[in-house]
Amino acid sequence: MIDLYGISSPNVLKVIIMLEETGLTYDLHRIDIWAADQFTDEFKALNPNSKVPVIVDHDGLGGQPVTLFESGAILFYLAEKLQAFLPSTPQDRYATMQWLMLQMGTIGPMFGQATHFRSSAPAGQEYSLSRYTTEVHRLYDVLEARLSQADYLGGEDYTIADMATWPWAAMYHEQNGVELSRIPAVKRWIETIAARPAVVRAHQDWPSLVAYALERRASADPDKRDRLHGRGRYARGPRP
Amino acid sequence: MIDLYGISSPNVLKVIIMLEETGLTYDLHRIDIWAADQFTDEFKALNPNSKVPVIVDHDGLGGQPVTLFESGAILFYLAEKLQAFLPSTPQDRYATMQWLMLQMGTIGPMFGQATHFRSSAPAGQEYSLSRYTTEVHRLYDVLEARLSQADYLGGEDYTIADMATWPWAAMYHEQNGVELSRIPAVKRWIETIAARPAVVRAHQDWPSLVAYALERRASADPDKRDRLHGRGRYARGPRP
Ligand SMILES: N[C@@H](CCC(=O)N[C@@H](CS)C(=O)NCC(=O)O)C(=O)O
Ligand SMILES: N[C@@H](CCC(=O)N[C@@H](CS)C(=O)NCC(=O)O)C(=O)O
Repeated sequence: MIDLYGISSPNVLKVIIMLEETGLTYDLHRIDIWAADQFTDEFKALNPNSKVPVIVDHDGLGGQPVTLFESGAILFYLAEKLQAFLPSTPQDRYATMQWLMLQMGTIGPMFGQATHFRSSAPAGQEYSLSRYTTEVHRLYDVLEARLSQADYLGGEDYTIADMATWPWAAMYHEQNGVELSRIPAVKRWIETIAARPAVVRAHQDWPSLVAYALERRASADPDKRDRLHGRGRYARGPRP
Repeated sequence: MIDLYGISSPNVLKVIIMLEETGLTYDLHRIDIWAADQFTDEFKALNPNSKVPVIVDHDGLGGQPVTLFESGAILFYLAEKLQAFLPSTPQDRYATMQWLMLQMGTIGPMFGQATHFRSSAPAGQEYSLSRYTTEVHRLYDVLEARLSQADYLGGEDYTIADMATWPWAAMYHEQNGVELSRIPAVKRWIETIAARPAVVRAHQDWPSLVAYALERRASADPDKRDRLHGRGRYARGPRP
C-alpha cells in the first residue's frame, strides 16, 4: 500500500500512471498548495522542498517504509522495485535515463515557466512569455526528432521516460500554439500512450482533481498565492 | 577513454568531477555554443537537445560505445559502470537519486534562469529576476535543512547527488546575494567538497575554459546569441 500526496499536476500524473501500470494499490491525498499546506512542518518532513508528488511506500525495499519526493526518483524507485519499465540492457537503460533526465531537467521546468507566464504572472512579461514559449516549441521539435527514429523515448519499449514526458507533451501543446499535425511522430506517440488501459484508468479521478484545484485556487488568500508564485516572504527585489 | 564535450558550465563541471573522482581518462572538447555549434547536424547526432555535457565512452557497458547526454544520466551511468558514488542500500540509493533529481529538475534550471535574468536579459525584467532570485534563496534553505541533518545529500556518503549540486551551490551564492554565514551546514559542505583532491584537480583547466567562454561570448554574432537565449529563429511573440 502506497500513500501518494498530490494534486492535478503533470508531475503527479506521471506517478499515477506508473502505479496503474504496475497495479500497485495507493491512496491519493490532496495537498492544498494554494493554502500553503506544502510549507507545514508535517509536509516538510515528507519533502523539505515543499512540492508534490511525494510517496510513502509502507512496503518499501529492505522491509522498511520508503518516503520519496521528486517524480523522477519515484518512477526510478518503483521501476527498480518491480523490475518494470526500465530496461536492463545497457543501451536502452541509459537511453531511458537520459530522456527521463531531459524531462526532469528541461521539459518539466520550462513548460512550467511558460504556463506561469501565460496564466499567473502580472501583465507586461512579454519577454519571459516569449522565451519560454520558444523553448517549449524547441522541445517539441527535439521530441519529434527522437520519436521519428524510435517508437518510444528509451528505444523499442515503453518506459518511465515516456510516463514522465507524456503528461507534459499531451497536455500543453494547445496552450503553447504547437500544432500536432506538424509533428506526426509526437502525435502518434501521444495517441498510442493515451490508449493504454492503465493511462485511461489513471485519468479516472482527474476531473475531480482539476475541479479541486480550480476551487482552491479561486479561494486562495493573496499572500499565500504570492508565496506559491515565488513572491511571498522570501521575495527579494521589487514586488510586482 | 572518454570524450567529453563541454564548456565552463556547472553542468559540465559535475561530469569532470566524477571523471576525476573515478580516475577515468578523458579528453575535453570545447563546443562554441556562442557560434551555434550545438545546432550542427554533427552535434545533434550526439545530442538532439543541442546541449553540453555529452560523453562518448568508447569502452561502454556491454562492449559497445555509449553516447550520453544530460549530466544526471551521465553521472548515473558512470556510477553504475564503476559501482561508485551511488550507494546500494535502498535507503541511501533512493535518497541519492531524489536529491540528484532535485538538482536536475529545480536547482539547475532555476539557478540558470536567475543567471539569465541577471546577465543576459534586456532591461525591465524585474519581475522575473525577483521570481528566480527568490527561488534560489528558497533552494539554499532547502539544502541547509537537509545538510543540517546529514553530512551529504544522499546520507552518510559523498555521492553523485553532491557532485551534481556542488558546482551550482558553490558558484552562485554571491551573485544571488545569499550569505553563506547564514547557512552554516551548506557552508561546511561546500568547503569539505572543495577540498577533495579530485575536485581540486577538476578545476585545473577551469581558468582557461572560462577565458574561452568570455572570449567566444564577446565575439558572438547577435543572431546566434539571440538563438542561444531563445530569441532566435524559433521566437514566437514579440522580440525584445
Ligand atoms: N521536479 C519536481 C517538481 C514538482 C512540482 O513542481 N510540484 C508542484 C506542482 S506541479 C508543486 O508542488 N508546487 C507547490 C509549490 O511550488 O509550492 C517533480 O518532478 O516532482
Ligand atoms: N539538463 C542539462 C542542461 C545542460 C545545459 O543547459 N547546457 C548548457 C550549458 S550549461 C548548454 O549547452 N547550452 C547551450 C544552448 O542552450 O543552446 C544537463 O544537466 O546536462
